[in-house]
Amino acid sequence: MNSIITGTGSYIPKIVKKNSDFLDREFYGEKNESFETSNEIIIEKFKGITGIEERRYLEPDLQNSDAAAIASKNAIESSKIDPEEIDQIIYAHNFGDIRYNDNQSDMVPSLASRVKHLLRIKNPNCVCYDVVFGCPGWLQGLIQADNFIQAGMAKKCLVIGAETLSRVVDPHDRDSMIYSDGAGACIIEKGTDPSKGILSHASQSFTYDEANYLFFGESNKIIPNISTRYIKMYGRKIYEFALNNVPNAMQIALERSGLQIEQIKKILIHQANEKMDEAIINRFYKLFNASIPTGAMPMSIQNLGNSSVATVPTLLDLILKNNLEGHEIKDGDAVILASVGAGMNINAVVYKF
Amino acid sequence: MNSIITGTGSYIPKIVKKNSDFLDREFYGEKNESFETSNEIIIEKFKGITGIEERRYLEPDLQNSDAAAIASKNAIESSKIDPEEIDQIIYAHNFGDIRYNDNQSDMVPSLASRVKHLLRIKNPNCVCYDVVFGCPGWLQGLIQADNFIQAGMAKKCLVIGAETLSRVVDPHDRDSMIYSDGAGACIIEKGTDPSKGILSHASQSFTYDEANYLFFGESNKIIPNISTRYIKMYGRKIYEFALNNVPNAMQIALERSGLQIEQIKKILIHQANEKMDEAIINRFYKLFNASIPTGAMPMSIQNLGNSSVATVPTLLDLILKNNLEGHEIKDGDAVILASVGAGMNINAVVYKF
Repeated sequence: MNSIITGTGSYIPKIVKKNSDFLDREFYGEKNESFETSNEIIIEKFKGITGIEERRYLEPDLQNSDAAAIASKNAIESSKIDPEEIDQIIYAHNFGDIRYNDNQSDMVPSLASRVKHLLRIKNPNCVCYDVVFGCPGWLQGLIQADNFIQAGMAKKCLVIGAETLSRVVDPHDRDSMIYSDGAGACIIEKGTDPSKGILSHASQSFTYDEANYLFFGESNKIIPNISTRYIKMYGRKIYEFALNNVPNAMQIALERSGLQIEQIKKILIHQANEKMDEAIINRFYKLFNASIPTGAMPMSIQNLGNSSVATVPTLLDLILKNNLEGHEIKDGDAVILASVGAGMNINAVVYKF
Repeated sequence: MNSIITGTGSYIPKIVKKNSDFLDREFYGEKNESFETSNEIIIEKFKGITGIEERRYLEPDLQNSDAAAIASKNAIESSKIDPEEIDQIIYAHNFGDIRYNDNQSDMVPSLASRVKHLLRIKNPNCVCYDVVFGCPGWLQGLIQADNFIQAGMAKKCLVIGAETLSRVVDPHDRDSMIYSDGAGACIIEKGTDPSKGILSHASQSFTYDEANYLFFGESNKIIPNISTRYIKMYGRKIYEFALNNVPNAMQIALERSGLQIEQIKKILIHQANEKMDEAIINRFYKLFNASIPTGAMPMSIQNLGNSSVATVPTLLDLILKNNLEGHEIKDGDAVILASVGAGMNINAVVYKF
């Protein structure tokens, strides 16, 4: 039987950071060069490409796993399961818990263990681990949960994606405006209806030339004796890579599902960059000589930015709880969940509600 | 069919750090108090409990994933598989890559992606991810690989455990003498003989009261304006926890395997602390009113220390390649692999060669 999502949850951090909050930033380029263009123009151009108007930062007194625990509680409540019945807690992130104004990643104990502790779950047979798989980590956790369910090792899993990118951004890098914080989660269980749930999936890792397209590097501003590193990316290379490879992975997953392109109602894609996401979806539909149906591409990046592993589960939660205007998912709807990010990793899941 | 290990590899770091190298250390207690006993006595007592005479530190020009790539190359060579046939690379660690004399964990891209890059594997369908599960991470990776194989998602997996604890130890904490660096790996494949391979496994996470028995905390020496954190533990609590819970998890795994206690030739247990490991094994055999067979408990901690996720795969590699004096594993031998660590996590695998 296919695995089905029986509950979702998310936590939208409270601090709203607007584009105008970056007007007084001292930006430098990759080669530490200063820019001749004003920040007004840099930000306008940034908004045009990414679609981002504002993003969310986690409250200073919280850490990644605190936000994840709130999202998880929501998911458990909406699934109506007893939390003591959860067999696995799978937590995707890439930077661990980082305290506000600190630069050390903390994963001892694992963030999944912290969530279980915060949820006051007692059952020792609820096994907790973290998965590091770049931005597609939450979706990969979902695929792993599906495998555990298929292999008979688990019946109910909590899958979390939570990240605090605001704590690893270089304030002197224009790309810092992309990143935000967020937490999403779901409960996935062994289903009873073979026509519903996870119909198929595909995952790929491109590392030969692409491993360091996203990396951890020093500030664009030269600051003597400071070697602190931040999240960094080669945006142009990622754009081309994603365009060349994500549609194919989605196609593989769709073919494995046995569904036709016309049966797909929506594509919930990692909120990386609006223009890139649109280009990916366009190319995907071109592979089938099909046109994109209205409302096929829900987006939250305008107000929530790119919160890495948290974008897809948060988007799903917003739609399922009717909190994303103009979007709904009905019983029987088939969707594709897809993501791309550091690794470079790509994955896609075909899911029928 | 059961999953079988077809190759193992390890990397023993080159820098030997002897107990005498700690004689001039300025040690403080958990409450920042200084000790009245001399370092000679502290070290003698330490050796009596842990069994550790020396440990290994990774060369300054290497990082965790470099050591892992060497261990992986060995494992691939001994398995004789084509690396392009690997379906999943699963890499257990708890601190990412940390540069020598730095304190930031780096996992972008994931360490599994770095290993695939270093091994020059091209196949994009070889999926790479990291797992964070405390010291039992490598064994949990093995269990996950087994699940992927059982679920039909993978045929061949590379499972790595590598850690550089020397880069997260507090030099002012006596416990720093326990920790070392290491890397171990194996290739696990779909088997053909149902009587061999992974017969059963058990995993548990204790987080209700135990989540922070191992944690990331500040130095035992008060250093103004420095908030760097290090690996820390409540040794006494861990000792009691392990003694109360590890034997039970091993018993669960053994019962699931259908084997009798008399059929177990060896127990390869996480090299945490010699006295604790002996107490665990003693209590395990007591559960069955059985006596411990000669040579049942191979140990490497005397010379290699506690390298977290790396101890069990390294120990296995040493024995299988006849590099651990007095120990061998023969065709048909059944063994238990077991581990305990941060989370607090426990796992056990019953394996027949």
